Amino acid sequence: MAVQAIVWGENVHDRENELVRSIYPDGMHGCIAEALNESPDISATTATLEQDEHGLPADRLARTDVLLWWGHKAHGDVDDGIVERVVERVWEGMGLLVLHSGHFSKVFKRLMGSSCALTWREAGERERLWAINPAHPIAAGVGPYFELEQSEMYGEPFGVPEPLETVFVSWYEGGEVFRSGLTFQRGGGRIFYFSPGHEVYPVYHDATVRTILRNAVMWAAKPGIRWENVADAPNRPVGEALEPLEEKGPRLHEDGEAGYR
Amino acid sequence: MAVQAIVWGENVHDRENELVRSIYPDGMHGCIAEALNESPDISATTATLEQDEHGLPADRLARTDVLLWWGHKAHGDVDDGIVERVVERVWEGMGLLVLHSGHFSKVFKRLMGSSCALTWREAGERERLWAINPAHPIAAGVGPYFELEQSEMYGEPFGVPEPLETVFVSWYEGGEVFRSGLTFQRGGGRIFYFSPGHEVYPVYHDATVRTILRNAVMWAAKPGIRWENVADAPNRPVGEALEPLEEKGPRLHEDGEAGYR
Amino acid sequence: MAVQAIVWGENVHDRENELVRSIYPDGMHGCIAEALNESPDISATTATLEQDEHGLPADRLARTDVLLWWGHKAHGDVDDGIVERVVERVWEGMGLLVLHSGHFSKVFKRLMGSSCALTWREAGERERLWAINPAHPIAAGVGPYFELEQSEMYGEPFGVPEPLETVFVSWYEGGEVFRSGLTFQRGGGRIFYFSPGHEVYPVYHDATVRTILRNAVMWAAKPGIRWENVADAPNRPVGEALEPLEEKGPRLHEDGEAGYR
Amino acid sequence: MAVQAIVWGENVHDRENELVRSIYPDGMHGCIAEALNESPDISATTATLEQDEHGLPADRLARTDVLLWWGHKAHGDVDDGIVERVVERVWEGMGLLVLHSGHFSKVFKRLMGSSCALTWREAGERERLWAINPAHPIAAGVGPYFELEQSEMYGEPFGVPEPLETVFVSWYEGGEVFRSGLTFQRGGGRIFYFSPGHEVYPVYHDATVRTILRNAVMWAAKPGIRWENVADAPNRPVGEALEPLEEKGPRLHEDGEAGYR
Repeated sequence: MAVQAIVWGENVHDRENELVRSIYPDGMHGCIAEALNESPDISATTATLEQDEHGLPADRLARTDVLLWWGHKAHGDVDDGIVERVVERVWEGMGLLVLHSGHFSKVFKRLMGSSCALTWREAGERERLWAINPAHPIAAGVGPYFELEQSEMYGEPFGVPEPLETVFVSWYEGGEVFRSGLTFQRGGGRIFYFSPGHEVYPVYHDATVRTILRNAVMWAAKPGIRWENVADAPNRPVGEALEPLEEKGPRLHEDGEAGYR
Repeated sequence: MAVQAIVWGENVHDRENELVRSIYPDGMHGCIAEALNESPDISATTATLEQDEHGLPADRLARTDVLLWWGHKAHGDVDDGIVERVVERVWEGMGLLVLHSGHFSKVFKRLMGSSCALTWREAGERERLWAINPAHPIAAGVGPYFELEQSEMYGEPFGVPEPLETVFVSWYEGGEVFRSGLTFQRGGGRIFYFSPGHEVYPVYHDATVRTILRNAVMWAAKPGIRWENVADAPNRPVGEALEPLEEKGPRLHEDGEAGYR
Repeated sequence: MAVQAIVWGENVHDRENELVRSIYPDGMHGCIAEALNESPDISATTATLEQDEHGLPADRLARTDVLLWWGHKAHGDVDDGIVERVVERVWEGMGLLVLHSGHFSKVFKRLMGSSCALTWREAGERERLWAINPAHPIAAGVGPYFELEQSEMYGEPFGVPEPLETVFVSWYEGGEVFRSGLTFQRGGGRIFYFSPGHEVYPVYHDATVRTILRNAVMWAAKPGIRWENVADAPNRPVGEALEPLEEKGPRLHEDGEAGYR
Repeated sequence: MAVQAIVWGENVHDRENELVRSIYPDGMHGCIAEALNESPDISATTATLEQDEHGLPADRLARTDVLLWWGHKAHGDVDDGIVERVVERVWEGMGLLVLHSGHFSKVFKRLMGSSCALTWREAGERERLWAINPAHPIAAGVGPYFELEQSEMYGEPFGVPEPLETVFVSWYEGGEVFRSGLTFQRGGGRIFYFSPGHEVYPVYHDATVRTILRNAVMWAAKPGIRWENVADAPNRPVGEALEPLEEKGPRLHEDGEAGYR
């Protein structure tokens, strides 16, 4: 069965800004989903902020292998309960791709535990992304580097924890660098942050960007794998110990009592 | 100047539970601070939940190199604003030692971005902590392993991100294992999680545990280093680019406008 | 096409030791290859020390997605040239599974750059392997833990670099712990070290061990991905710079000269 | 007591190349040692290739907290026995700073287990080093970035394992990027690779570079800590097990026999 992906789009500038609308008539999420569906191994649909439960009801998320997240202007409008739902699904094993301005989304900040801050400049300058590990599955087919003629500059320091892997590092015309492709792990979930994607440039029409997104979805997907009850903290009673065990000394908790959270 | 440390204690069982009070007449925080102050390089004070601002006003935190956190029953009573204050200080460079049941504290969960869950058993069983890297500064003087005759079992899976370093792994009489000493980095801050410390056993009177706490405070301290404005996301205007840069193409933001968060 | 795997076996005790021969009539490599071939996604063959080029000619390695390595008594007999050939193939992207006493193989030591030492005891004691990340693809289907009734104890400290991921940690009856499943990356290659596998116990007949080996082969495989010329250090002449560049200042090297190695 | 550092220099171009001699009349090693000795906390001496045992007799290394390594033209002339001696001292806990073309030194390649390859261009172009973690002790006092007006370009992909921490990333005038400051751990030893330092530019006279070298020496030093017998693989006899243990099943080794290596 194909990997089940949802492209979540904020869908604000996509509707309200004439320029963005002209570049992405089906919304950025629509364009990205189309890119994913070019692979026979991926089945991608979309979800947006204005939908009921932001288009992410629990049962839909439960069937999803990889979620992609693009948000910018309306981070604050995302419901905290939905954020927690997404976060728990990541812990369970759902893959997550966070795109561009999604670095400041509630979901990403919640999973990183860090500032997620960076510096930025909107000048339509050239960005050149270098493959740090050209044999990483996410970089397959990219070559040593690729260029975006117009890009928003995102500059270091990028306030994220040390990543598991650095896949891309960007060079900018204006003199900055940025770790533009990074992998993380939270619970059972694989996370990929990918920085290109400013809405006033046609980044998601770029063939290499589309290849990377497809690669990353396949890399992040773990169909059939689920860390059940990932947030539980079960008591293991003495009587059920795996090795012979005699209780010694004092106790704080009664039998069967839950721990404090 | 000595490293400035604060030992934060929840101070609930320390006062309300007769057994805990008998083991720790000055509170667990008092006992830990005493252990730290045995080093001429550390100056440790205490703070507790019931104090104003939980004893952690901003100016006091600003002067603190390392914070130690022990909480259990009253995690939910810690004010969210104070949590954010502590978290930002960690990002700025303050060291953080999270002890035992502090794995479920708001501060730790906020910084990890993961479930922080584990399995547990309160049977007074033997725990043997093995030094994974005997030459890590935190393990200095510990030897290949040490034992706690009575300990609460904390078992894997421990819901934390892949650590920077695994310093200790524990063996339990009842058959479980646990990564009992782990390091992490968030922003400028070094974090050490250390699992021993159940309140009904005299763990913080153990000489090796006290050595490890002193070692860890020195490892986590970065006196004089501060990542200023760590959560800012400054715009770098075209006119101030480090390399000659001409603005190209369309823009979303006006000059001087802040980014979306 | 199925993932192409080679199970490399030293094949010394397999032939010379009556007990080992009785447990593994087709050799340990034969037993492991059989386990892998139970998956329709894997096509596994074997290679052994006594074969020409140890069964690992360059063209065969070039077609191989994942190599498994079991050696013990005859580490020193492995040709250094073949070791370098294997190592370069790993850098290029071939997966590598190092099994049990292979921790002291030339190939593993060469790739780790560390001592690869550990403590050990041959007492037929119980080993319990805990899944640290139950949703890691290598741990799929294993459950929270599994047991080997008879195992050789391998104890910490294990002299390897901090791993990318800790997948399993073992508990031993005699009181030790061991990081029994670890992942690493070297160049384009994914590496998994898995400690069970002493030749006088029927470890590779264990159903869970066989599941893990199949999982790990699939995890390590990158069919179709190759980091070409992985060890080259090409000069990028000024005239071919990606940005306009004027040569400034003195030089050590003439045009077209190779760098020093 | 001050941290004991040795600056190892190949001392070939330093003597034979007129330009290098004019920039570094006391050799590059002499200039670097001078930079270190500007700190009251460091006591730095030098050692060079042409000295007996390359200036690195075992007893001298045993007293050394941090070794710095600069080599280029004569990597192949370094004695393999001395390389192993240095490597074992790193495993024991000695810090190691590898500078510039030292990426291809035997010592660094031996410790990394990877190709250590990169791309390069000698054009005297501008390099701008960005601090990825401005609060890392190695980056203290550096600010968000610093520039070298003339530098040799070192470009990605850099064939090293995923680092523990990325401290600096470089931007180059010609369009490349490079992870110019990386930390690693091998056994007890902390390793820092720092890429600037081409011999025909006055890089080690740069005030910021000198600050970074001093910072890195202090970060890598672990005075008083030694992982004894780091490469031993001791047998733990059944009779000395930490938990009651009865021998079960067959054995390969006789009592007191050493393991195979």
